[in-house]
Amino acid sequence: MIDFAPLYSRDVACMRYSPIRRMAKLAMQPGIIGFAAGTPSATTFPAEEIRRIAGEILEKDAQGALQYGLTLGFAGLIDALNSFNKTRRGIDCTAEEVCIVSGSQQALDLIGRLFLDPGDVVLIELPSYIGGISAFRNLQAELVGVRQASDGIDIEDLVARIEACRVRGRNPKLLYVIPNFQNPSGITMSVEKRRALLGVAARYQLLIVEDDPYGEVCFDESLMPSLRPIKSMDTEGRVLYLSTFSKILAAGLRVGWIVAPRPVIEKLDLVKQSTDLCGSMLDQRIVAECLRQGVVDRHLPKIREFYRRKCRVMLESLEKAVLPGVQWTRPEGGLFLWITLPARLDSEALLSESIESARVAYVPGHPFYVDDAGRNTLRVAFSKESEDNIRAGIDRLAQVFRRHLE
Amino acid sequence: MIDFAPLYSRDVACMRYSPIRRMAKLAMQPGIIGFAAGTPSATTFPAEEIRRIAGEILEKDAQGALQYGLTLGFAGLIDALNSFNKTRRGIDCTAEEVCIVSGSQQALDLIGRLFLDPGDVVLIELPSYIGGISAFRNLQAELVGVRQASDGIDIEDLVARIEACRVRGRNPKLLYVIPNFQNPSGITMSVEKRRALLGVAARYQLLIVEDDPYGEVCFDESLMPSLRPIKSMDTEGRVLYLSTFSKILAAGLRVGWIVAPRPVIEKLDLVKQSTDLCGSMLDQRIVAECLRQGVVDRHLPKIREFYRRKCRVMLESLEKAVLPGVQWTRPEGGLFLWITLPARLDSEALLSESIESARVAYVPGHPFYVDDAGRNTLRVAFSKESEDNIRAGIDRLAQVFRRHLE
Repeated sequence: MIDFAPLYSRDVACMRYSPIRRMAKLAMQPGIIGFAAGTPSATTFPAEEIRRIAGEILEKDAQGALQYGLTLGFAGLIDALNSFNKTRRGIDCTAEEVCIVSGSQQALDLIGRLFLDPGDVVLIELPSYIGGISAFRNLQAELVGVRQASDGIDIEDLVARIEACRVRGRNPKLLYVIPNFQNPSGITMSVEKRRALLGVAARYQLLIVEDDPYGEVCFDESLMPSLRPIKSMDTEGRVLYLSTFSKILAAGLRVGWIVAPRPVIEKLDLVKQSTDLCGSMLDQRIVAECLRQGVVDRHLPKIREFYRRKCRVMLESLEKAVLPGVQWTRPEGGLFLWITLPARLDSEALLSESIESARVAYVPGHPFYVDDAGRNTLRVAFSKESEDNIRAGIDRLAQVFRRHLE
Repeated sequence: MIDFAPLYSRDVACMRYSPIRRMAKLAMQPGIIGFAAGTPSATTFPAEEIRRIAGEILEKDAQGALQYGLTLGFAGLIDALNSFNKTRRGIDCTAEEVCIVSGSQQALDLIGRLFLDPGDVVLIELPSYIGGISAFRNLQAELVGVRQASDGIDIEDLVARIEACRVRGRNPKLLYVIPNFQNPSGITMSVEKRRALLGVAARYQLLIVEDDPYGEVCFDESLMPSLRPIKSMDTEGRVLYLSTFSKILAAGLRVGWIVAPRPVIEKLDLVKQSTDLCGSMLDQRIVAECLRQGVVDRHLPKIREFYRRKCRVMLESLEKAVLPGVQWTRPEGGLFLWITLPARLDSEALLSESIESARVAYVPGHPFYVDDAGRNTLRVAFSKESEDNIRAGIDRLAQVFRRHLE
């Protein structure tokens, strides 16, 4: 067998399996209560309606649904999506400002390839989504972390980080943010901070990559105006907006989207063409029909209620648990919350104890930080388990923590 | 509006729309006989069976089919595929040696990212598939062309090119070949040359990227033994084999695959995860069931007969057309053939005349060459048009050519 190691590209030579993936295997043993995976619950997917719609599509226009399509996406989906963008997300854009992608992970990769050369600086929240971190890191970008407060990114710290980069001759190119129910922290950025970010971006010639997978998974409809994307306030074309149907329709239908200025979409067309020619045509048509027939609109209240209840149960269980010195976020949407242990504790070290003695899995927080911090933090997802399991799991997890808090 | 141009990465800054894409728009006017698009005919897709199978999947296991899956692909598909690899392609491999991709274009991109740094040399047939050329070129690889004869790549020229690279201190990393009914030439590589390539690859420490989208689209079943992939003879793990269901099942279901040694697949897992997390789960399950239920096996004879007849009609029309000094290939499978005009003629210049006066579209050959040659060549696909249109189209095209041959 050949030794492949010397043949890999520089990008790839430095890639490793993340500790999270190793842990994920452990956590898949039977009997484990799973707070680790941040995936949506498959029980929220409108399976019956999707089955009916898939059947209709393959009855009426199988040849279209089974043939290659345009790289930027199926025109019928882009149309349906732009109504959704406008009415639900407050984003008014043309068909030429949209690129359909195979989930927003592909969007992160494509945007990275569009703008990043090795060594380019990306500003990124502390903590942030691991998939975003790895997409940018795999392109050999330099990732500079920016602190978050309970109302989102710390603008002062952001400016200080940018200035520090400039002092050493580097102008950051991208700022990556997840303003709504952030992954992994559950934090939501205030409206004031969203506006302020646009000012900072203009001042320092930054582009904002706004990742919004959870905005519609909001537990209280009255909050929606405060969840308006930064993109909806962007008059300059500085925001590249990404979202996905993974959380509000079905994750296995790989359909996400990018809204960006037309020249960026034209470049994306070129980059994407050589990466996959086009996305799944059947998936795109199913999602288009789900939008057109109101499946998403009808279904959203159920999804919100589903996660709202689970989140409440988890918060109540945490509050009952008596955990001195332990803090957690209180998300108003999304799939998970964030626990901060006293600084001396290491959530990665505690994980094996948690799995073995308490039979509970979570994700250690350290890999979500690009500055090597966060060893005392962890993410617990309430998306997967039943309410009873959430109660039992938090109870058992609290026992593990208490052993180390004393 | 911001000026994005200075912000693009070096890879992207040098990307342009290929002339083929510009032409494609012209060729989509109504009334044009289309020999340009090399896509399979949608009438060959087993729509009825796919509809039934999609319904069954969404009835029996919607939650699985609509949820995220593994990055390397759905295990049920990998199993079914490995029977196919073994019985139909003579490739005996384990589940750990397979990565499912969203069509083989994604395979080309991922393999490029796995192995290529800017300036690395990829050896490539003259002419070769445009999507392969652009995937490698977009990664800033240096593409070195190798001549083809009527029985495939010219081994002497290959060795000479490798030696010339080594003289200037560059060891080529990859050799990209399409041994069966090559895109765009329709040429098939002889068994002797397939064997010889393995020797050359071992001698010069090359990896072979073997792209085989058309191997099963063979007009004469008795030829199958001579179409055995290079991978089936590879004892050293030097061949990375790619194929796809786009031509033998449905192009819009984005399902292709890579067979490669296990360490390469493990790296692919990492690279692919940050590019899309996973491919369409519904598409993968549909393809798995089509394999398991024998849809592909039952369907293949019809597909072969469909394209065999069209190819014969095109060849007969060309033979009748009286075109002194014009040559063409006689493919034994695939979707297109290759025409070489006298050296003084330019197929790109003739295309507008062909579209405007003859209402026939084809693809000029020049962009398929990485050495700036091939201006007198063109690709004509017989996949899309009816037999009557093929006769009429070749007749009208021949009239255009004859005006310039006199």
